[in-house]
Amino acid sequence: MSKVRSAVLTAPNTALGPGPEFDTIRSLVDRLGSRATGIGDDAAILRVPRGDVLVASVDALIERRHFERAWIEPREIGFRATSAAMSDLAAMGAWPLGTLVALGIPESWRGVLGEITDGIAEALVAADSFALGGNMSAASELSITTTVLGHTFRPMQRSGASAGDSLYVTGVLGGPTRAIAAWKRGEVPEQWHRERFARPCPRLAEARWLAAHGATSAIDISDGLVADLGHLAAANGLVAEIELDRVPVIDGATPADAVQGGEEYELIIAGPRELSVGEFESTFGLRLTRIGDLRAGPPEVRVTWRGSRVDVPGGFNHVTA
Amino acid sequence: MSKVRSAVLTAPNTALGPGPEFDTIRSLVDRLGSRATGIGDDAAILRVPRGDVLVASVDALIERRHFERAWIEPREIGFRATSAAMSDLAAMGAWPLGTLVALGIPESWRGVLGEITDGIAEALVAADSFALGGNMSAASELSITTTVLGHTFRPMQRSGASAGDSLYVTGVLGGPTRAIAAWKRGEVPEQWHRERFARPCPRLAEARWLAAHGATSAIDISDGLVADLGHLAAANGLVAEIELDRVPVIDGATPADAVQGGEEYELIIAGPRELSVGEFESTFGLRLTRIGDLRAGPPEVRVTWRGSRVDVPGGFNHVTA
Repeated sequence: MSKVRSAVLTAPNTALGPGPEFDTIRSLVDRLGSRATGIGDDAAILRVPRGDVLVASVDALIERRHFERAWIEPREIGFRATSAAMSDLAAMGAWPLGTLVALGIPESWRGVLGEITDGIAEALVAADSFALGGNMSAASELSITTTVLGHTFRPMQRSGASAGDSLYVTGVLGGPTRAIAAWKRGEVPEQWHRERFARPCPRLAEARWLAAHGATSAIDISDGLVADLGHLAAANGLVAEIELDRVPVIDGATPADAVQGGEEYELIIAGPRELSVGEFESTFGLRLTRIGDLRAGPPEVRVTWRGSRVDVPGGFNHVTA
Repeated sequence: MSKVRSAVLTAPNTALGPGPEFDTIRSLVDRLGSRATGIGDDAAILRVPRGDVLVASVDALIERRHFERAWIEPREIGFRATSAAMSDLAAMGAWPLGTLVALGIPESWRGVLGEITDGIAEALVAADSFALGGNMSAASELSITTTVLGHTFRPMQRSGASAGDSLYVTGVLGGPTRAIAAWKRGEVPEQWHRERFARPCPRLAEARWLAAHGATSAIDISDGLVADLGHLAAANGLVAEIELDRVPVIDGATPADAVQGGEEYELIIAGPRELSVGEFESTFGLRLTRIGDLRAGPPEVRVTWRGSRVDVPGGFNHVTA
């Protein structure tokens, strides 16, 4: 596939003029190596494969709002920003085309810009994607705003599901929440919790497999399982009913961590009851768990625990946080 | 044209789940009215007209780096952020498809988010474009990071010019620099200088006209005339030679304001000597001025004043500012 996919990119890098700002850009582009393409014009130029639609999304990672500097390495910050943004392409069942990266850079972060860029490059390699352009500004807090562009013949949307569809979730949840809780207590998180926060994995190939095997609708878990199920319920005008007992929880976490914590970048999928979970799991080495169903009714999320309805408040407010 | 162009957008808005964050998003989407489309999925979905390439660029406007809160109104901040980003599409000779807007929002700005959004909508109407999605985060300084997506059959790049091409600039320069200087002295700028800063105009139709009439290369003036000519010279491997006496200067500004000041969002164009300046000016009611030529030689900018070479330092460093 990769020969076909790189043909969608049409522009080589363009030489930039003199000056220290552009020396910085040149050094970052060098670090991106073959993952940087079409950089240096007023805009990136790319070709969307004929017949496909373009899908586009933007996501921001901001110091002290989404992470503390002491928690993870600069390289992990770059990796995480890129992978989290790419997760929105996964939720659409799309192939990545490329990314645009806008950096807000405080003076105290300038020395590690190269390491952040290495992490961006690593995430681009993992997703077989490219850096197509960007923007740099001085700022008082580090921010990495990543625009992802992708393509697909038939996007998998949040809407598109029907009453009677089953609800599935990829992977195991609760790791990022446990890691953040440990850091906030001044402790060192378990390595496998930390990894889920520092190196999220956009489920790109998994989502395309699921779309090809009958998934009707998807959303990635950024706000938290219950909050994001709320979006899926609203988009479809249906009740999302899940059994908390079934939710896959990472070793050392609780069901509460798994349903309320965000930034998982796993996928919630609606699809047929007979989805081939075993084939998925053996193909990707990743769990796929049926956690409930979509039913007719006013859009809301209903959670049961050992057969009884429980109240689970959902999510994180990104605006007032 | 507008009937054809709106056909490139394929997705209606999707209902979002409950919660105060999403109430905020809903109220902003309402304010955008018919200029918001395809909002609320994991990613925007759009169709690039068959045969055209996609062009994509990102630009950030950050409080205290690019403007001070006391200088301009919230509505103007939204207008300016959107128009400045759109200027990169103009420099490519592209038609706008739509924008993604990532907002970093300090508490002290939350009350005027609606007015900022009105300004974004106004700029979208002016450019006949759409808001396709976005992101909101709490932040300690206001930032508006705008991704613009556009399309064209044949992009006008920074490269593409030849030795012997003439250099032209649209409009009159120096307004934003004079306005900023006045604000920094604690004075009120002249209204016509202020307007050039607060309400920049992306030269979209102008650029497409120029591309259709033989322009070979273009860049928009964001860093300053001399700095951006430096990029054009580097991209083409040519000397950019301009006569300072010819540079069109806004009433009340000096040639130094006009060549060193950035954020003009006028266009520098390379093209044939016989470009029909009169027809351009009568079509758009905007000046088009031949200011010099591209010549063979090592890429650099040469400026003459009354026939003698002068040294003009160029540009603004966005990273260390």
